[in-house]
Amino acid sequence: MFEDKNHRTELNSLGEFGLIRHLQGLIENKNPSTVKGIGDDAAVIDRSDHYEVLTNDLLIEGVHFDLSYTPLKHLGYKAAMVNISDVFAMNAHPSQITVGLAVSNRFSLEAIEELYGGILLACERFGVDLVGGDTSSTPSGMVISISAIGRVEKDKVVYRSTAQVHDLICVSGNLGAAYIGLQILNREKQIFLENPSVQPDLEGSDYVIERQLKPEARGDIIQALHSADILPTSMIDISDGLASELLHLCAASDKGCRIYEDKIPIDPLTVLKCEDFNINPTISALSGGEDYELLFTISQSDFEKAKAIPSISIIGHITEASAGSALIDKSDHETPIRAQGWDSMKDN
Amino acid sequence: MFEDKNHRTELNSLGEFGLIRHLQGLIENKNPSTVKGIGDDAAVIDRSDHYEVLTNDLLIEGVHFDLSYTPLKHLGYKAAMVNISDVFAMNAHPSQITVGLAVSNRFSLEAIEELYGGILLACERFGVDLVGGDTSSTPSGMVISISAIGRVEKDKVVYRSTAQVHDLICVSGNLGAAYIGLQILNREKQIFLENPSVQPDLEGSDYVIERQLKPEARGDIIQALHSADILPTSMIDISDGLASELLHLCAASDKGCRIYEDKIPIDPLTVLKCEDFNINPTISALSGGEDYELLFTISQSDFEKAKAIPSISIIGHITEASAGSALIDKSDHETPIRAQGWDSMKDN
Repeated sequence: MFEDKNHRTELNSLGEFGLIRHLQGLIENKNPSTVKGIGDDAAVIDRSDHYEVLTNDLLIEGVHFDLSYTPLKHLGYKAAMVNISDVFAMNAHPSQITVGLAVSNRFSLEAIEELYGGILLACERFGVDLVGGDTSSTPSGMVISISAIGRVEKDKVVYRSTAQVHDLICVSGNLGAAYIGLQILNREKQIFLENPSVQPDLEGSDYVIERQLKPEARGDIIQALHSADILPTSMIDISDGLASELLHLCAASDKGCRIYEDKIPIDPLTVLKCEDFNINPTISALSGGEDYELLFTISQSDFEKAKAIPSISIIGHITEASAGSALIDKSDHETPIRAQGWDSMKDN
Repeated sequence: MFEDKNHRTELNSLGEFGLIRHLQGLIENKNPSTVKGIGDDAAVIDRSDHYEVLTNDLLIEGVHFDLSYTPLKHLGYKAAMVNISDVFAMNAHPSQITVGLAVSNRFSLEAIEELYGGILLACERFGVDLVGGDTSSTPSGMVISISAIGRVEKDKVVYRSTAQVHDLICVSGNLGAAYIGLQILNREKQIFLENPSVQPDLEGSDYVIERQLKPEARGDIIQALHSADILPTSMIDISDGLASELLHLCAASDKGCRIYEDKIPIDPLTVLKCEDFNINPTISALSGGEDYELLFTISQSDFEKAKAIPSISIIGHITEASAGSALIDKSDHETPIRAQGWDSMKDN
């Protein structure tokens, strides 16, 4: 591991997922209580009569959030929700979080209280306790690190790696809105920077902006699936866009997929706002990210039960890996699914 | 909580522990599995037939570490050890960690591998698995966030809040070395900055520098206490110096203490190196920090058993809260113990 000290590999050449895969190759789990390590939405730990799931996320000012348009209370809410969403993506119930916070002295106590107010509000929605913390200073900027744990019965844990051929692919809610909300916030920020006397024009965009600033983890879907007696065959949450998450799920399961453009759930306001930015709404759904909806597969035998649940859309099916992953567009053309970066989204 | 939005309270006016206490006041735990929230070395979660402990730490470049003299492998090792030490301080056994890492692109893949190499080495020493991670970029600098979990039998968990009057106060190993190691590293850095052709003079300082760069969590002490059938009545690990940790333990237990200067274990090399910096070795032990030794109390009935364990020193006893916390110095004078900042250490 340390042989070739003079060689320099740029991190950019790997990307985040390449780096994680690379690091994963260095790690060998040995503790008998480790059921699942790196490679899913959360790790899984054996707790005798149940499993614990454990996930963590690091949020860096200037990379993950922009305080010029993100109220601190929303930021705290979202930071907690993002981790809670990872717990739900394992079909588990969140129970506790810890919060590490580092801030420069440009923040006041009142500002920190706003942030924690948002975190605690998110916790309250799902009966989660904030049980630990670390506070520290930074030379500049804000860093938030949240870890969340939850519990699940041993026979109910759902991984991203267990999709089967012919399974139906489902998503909750609708996609692409959070990305368009971000575009609007960025546009108004630019206008404000150029002319500080202009008030931001957010009228009529409430829904997509709220999807960006105040995402809701889909605990209701986990509950609805449980009530309908459906155990998904695989699951992942949509943080980086449908395309990227589908490819993760298919790669982990060693399968392919077909999804249908006309089945992808997109809110009418998202479609309308996409026009303003000359963005194809399907591309916003595929590559936009930050929707924090659930992407999961179910057995065909659960089709009728799933259809009866509001806010679940069946968008395609799982295939053999050899068939690859593809989108069938509205004109019946088949296009391979790629995990596009956001930069490539403007000219569609 | 959000009433007085126009008032600004500077964070500096509270300090880290004041901020944690303040935030603690906002939090009310409701989840039935939460046994202990904020306020100890780790949170405690009920896992049916055992307790889980959970802790996290945030390390920020330029605040917690200086890469100009900290090799990345040592940094990784220390970052993991600091969290593992918190797990031991609950009398628990560490089992898994998660690592969140954010770096700017000035770091290469090889550098990140060095860091993880150190983390994995620390994990290996105690059979800990690295089970989760998050990697991200920063505008500048490095941020490391580690969470550690462990397990302990329900009747074996040890808090900092349960010391009893007349209990004996013990520390493991020796104190003050890590602080003097840091002084030497800082001195050599300054000399190097003024004249880059001068090689650092670290000869004869190996031990104190290693105490700073490569601390060892005291799992051996937890094991030795267990083998000797001693269950500490309270425990905390020494990250911020003996004085600060003693005050935390006494405040949490609502007790006072008397400790004896001549009983505080200080390595001869620490004493020697303290002379170079005109620092009183006792002050280095009381206020230096980063020794990651264990501070704990035992019942008087365990005195003989504790005396038989090498590398445990009995340094004093617990009193009623009304007696306050004091050091009896070598001339039999009693001085109240204060949590001194490092800045106040130079003129002793």
